[in-house]
Amino acid sequence: MSKRGHRPAAGQTRCSIGRALEMLGDRWTLLILREALNGATRFSDFRDRLHVASDVLTQRLGTLVEGGVLDKHPYREAGNRSRMAYHLTPAGRELIVVFGALQQWGDTNCPHPDGPAVRRSSKTSGSALRVAFVDDDGTETAFDDVDLAAPVDARSPRPVA
Amino acid sequence: MSKRGHRPAAGQTRCSIGRALEMLGDRWTLLILREALNGATRFSDFRDRLHVASDVLTQRLGTLVEGGVLDKHPYREAGNRSRMAYHLTPAGRELIVVFGALQQWGDTNCPHPDGPAVRRSSKTSGSALRVAFVDDDGTETAFDDVDLAAPVDARSPRPVA
Repeated sequence: MSKRGHRPAAGQTRCSIGRALEMLGDRWTLLILREALNGATRFSDFRDRLHVASDVLTQRLGTLVEGGVLDKHPYREAGNRSRMAYHLTPAGRELIVVFGALQQWGDTNCPHPDGPAVRRSSKTSGSALRVAFVDDDGTETAFDDVDLAAPVDARSPRPVA
Repeated sequence: MSKRGHRPAAGQTRCSIGRALEMLGDRWTLLILREALNGATRFSDFRDRLHVASDVLTQRLGTLVEGGVLDKHPYREAGNRSRMAYHLTPAGRELIVVFGALQQWGDTNCPHPDGPAVRRSSKTSGSALRVAFVDDDGTETAFDDVDLAAPVDARSPRPVA
């Protein structure tokens, strides 16, 4: 990506959060991905659901295709010209855990008076789900017990982003 | 928040992701929060670790204090004037799951040649941790089995953001 401007230079950073943000970029990008996770595929789906300007949407979709989060495929409806549809790649579908975590945080910390708008559930059992830290045995660990510290060998040189 | 400009109007949205993003805002805000989760508290910690311009940092810290994610407390070192330190509130500390999810996604989908820079682990047992969806019994659910669909009564009117 060439347009950096005032942004942190995260492309080559050792930090995976910095790299993830380099890809996911800004709020429009995250909202576009949220709609993709909710089944939006067509340019008009994204535009109409988000009320986003077409030029902004074109740019963000292009970045997501380039970054391997969305795949672009032509489709054609009877009587219309060929258009593009955007589908999540496997990497894009894995973002469900990021969005689940954001949603859960929003529900707890900036709740809407009418309650949560989206329910996290299992497609097969219907059970309500939450996003949590688990170890290799699948045992859940409380947030307070989680350490995200860098290993000593990754602390030098100091991560920039 | 009054400065909307070209951004989605998410303040009153029913969607908790939109509300979370209204708070978390942009990439600088997320990087500031990442540093806060890594123990940064002083203005100079954030500025030096992120190479962020002071006016941008001041504005973003102010928004996070206003939003209840950071608390501001004065501190004073011998021979210096009083300065402000910024500590995560309980809501801020809960963001660890969002950052853990982002980091995990980045490690998998935009890996660094030297491997992950941060290890997610339990402070008490040292076990490696991952971010996952679990049900009330603590049973993990595969990403493919997760549904983030809106309940029918939340679909109307169509969520804007």
